[in-house]
Amino acid sequence: MRAGGPGALLALALGLALALAAWRRRRRPLREVLFFPSRPSCTEALLAEAAEPGGEPRPCPCPLPRGDSPFSRLLRRLLSARRSVDICLFAFSSPQLGRAVQLLHRRGVRVRIVTDAQYMGLRGSQIGLLRRTGIQVRHDQEGGYMHHKFAIVDGRTLITGSLNWTTHAIQNNRENVLVLEDAEYVKPFLEEFERIWEEYNPSNYTFFSKDDK
Amino acid sequence: MRAGGPGALLALALGLALALAAWRRRRRPLREVLFFPSRPSCTEALLAEAAEPGGEPRPCPCPLPRGDSPFSRLLRRLLSARRSVDICLFAFSSPQLGRAVQLLHRRGVRVRIVTDAQYMGLRGSQIGLLRRTGIQVRHDQEGGYMHHKFAIVDGRTLITGSLNWTTHAIQNNRENVLVLEDAEYVKPFLEEFERIWEEYNPSNYTFFSKDDK
Repeated sequence: MRAGGPGALLALALGLALALAAWRRRRRPLREVLFFPSRPSCTEALLAEAAEPGGEPRPCPCPLPRGDSPFSRLLRRLLSARRSVDICLFAFSSPQLGRAVQLLHRRGVRVRIVTDAQYMGLRGSQIGLLRRTGIQVRHDQEGGYMHHKFAIVDGRTLITGSLNWTTHAIQNNRENVLVLEDAEYVKPFLEEFERIWEEYNPSNYTFFSKDDK
Repeated sequence: MRAGGPGALLALALGLALALAAWRRRRRPLREVLFFPSRPSCTEALLAEAAEPGGEPRPCPCPLPRGDSPFSRLLRRLLSARRSVDICLFAFSSPQLGRAVQLLHRRGVRVRIVTDAQYMGLRGSQIGLLRRTGIQVRHDQEGGYMHHKFAIVDGRTLITGSLNWTTHAIQNNRENVLVLEDAEYVKPFLEEFERIWEEYNPSNYTFFSKDDK
C-alpha cells in the first residue's frame, strides 16, 4: 500500500480531472425564453430549407425583414422535429405555423393535435386545413376551454407559454414562450398530452347516443 | 512525499466525500408543474394562516373539501412571498387570489400589478378592488393584449403558464402552471416585468395630449 501511494494519488487525480471534463462537456438541456410581440418577418427561407434540406435557396421577393426574431426561433424549434410533434393549442390560426406543421407531416413526422372545440371552427383556424391533409386532430367536448398552449417536439423539447398560435398574438400581444428540456417539466406535459389525447378519443364522445342502432 | 502517501490519500478521500455531501445537500431549484382544472376546495385555512401566522385555527363551516389541489399549491406559492410579488396578468378575477394578494400587501410585501386595459374594467375583475387598497397597478394602452400570465415571488420564484387568475379557468379549463427557480427562466421574466412596468408608467400615456395646459 505504502509503495503505491503517489501512483494511486496520481491515478485518482487523473480520474477526477477526466470525470470533471466529461461533466462539463455534457449536453446542457435547452432553456430559452421568447417574448412577443415579434415584428413581422419573412420566414420563406426557413420553410423552404425545411421542405427541401440542402436545396437551392430561392430568394423571396417580399419586402419583410429576414433574420432572427422570437417568431423565427419558435418556428425553428418546431421545424427541428425528426420523429414526432404533439400539439395542444387553444387557438391555431397562424398560416406560417400551419405550413410548418403540414411540412413536418409530409416529411413523415408523426403530428397529433389537440384543440378547443369552440375555437377550431372559427374563421381563419388552421385546424380544418391540417385535418384535410391527414393530420390527426382531437378536441374537447367540455364546457371549459382546452386552454393549453404547448407543443412537444420529439418527446424531448417542450414549447409552452401564453402564446396562442395566431398571427395577431405573434405580432401584437405581450406574450411569452418557454423552451425547456428538463425532464421535470417535459415528462408531466407528455403525460398530460397522452391523458387528454385518450380522453378526447372520438369513441368517448357522449353526444353519440349509445342507444343508436 | 512517500511517507505522506496514505495520509494524503485519506485526506483527499475525506475532502471529496465532504464536498460530495455538500453538493447533494444544496438546495435544488424548485421545478413544479400544476395542471388544471382544480376541483373547488376550501382555502380558508390557508388564507387565515397567512393572515395570522401561528394564530388559533378557526374551522370553516363550508362543505368544500380541504387538502392538496393544484389551486391550493398555486395559492401556497403566492402566499410564501416575504418581500415582493410582481404580477403580470391578462385577466385577474379570482376572489381567493385577490384576497391572497391583499393579504400580502397588508403584510408589507411590495406588490406590483401589470394588467390588460381592456380586461381590467370588466365585471368581476379584481383590479379595481386591489387598486383601492393602495396596490400599484399599471396597464397597457396598446392595440394588442397584455396577454402574459405570470407572477414572480421574491424575485426568485417564477409562476407562469396558460392560466388566467379567474375562478372559471381554475375550475373548468385545461390549463398549466409552471413553478420555476432556474435563473435562465427567472431573470428574463424579471427583466420583462421591469421593461413593461416602465413602459406602462402613466407619465408615458399618449392619450394625455402634451399640449394640455
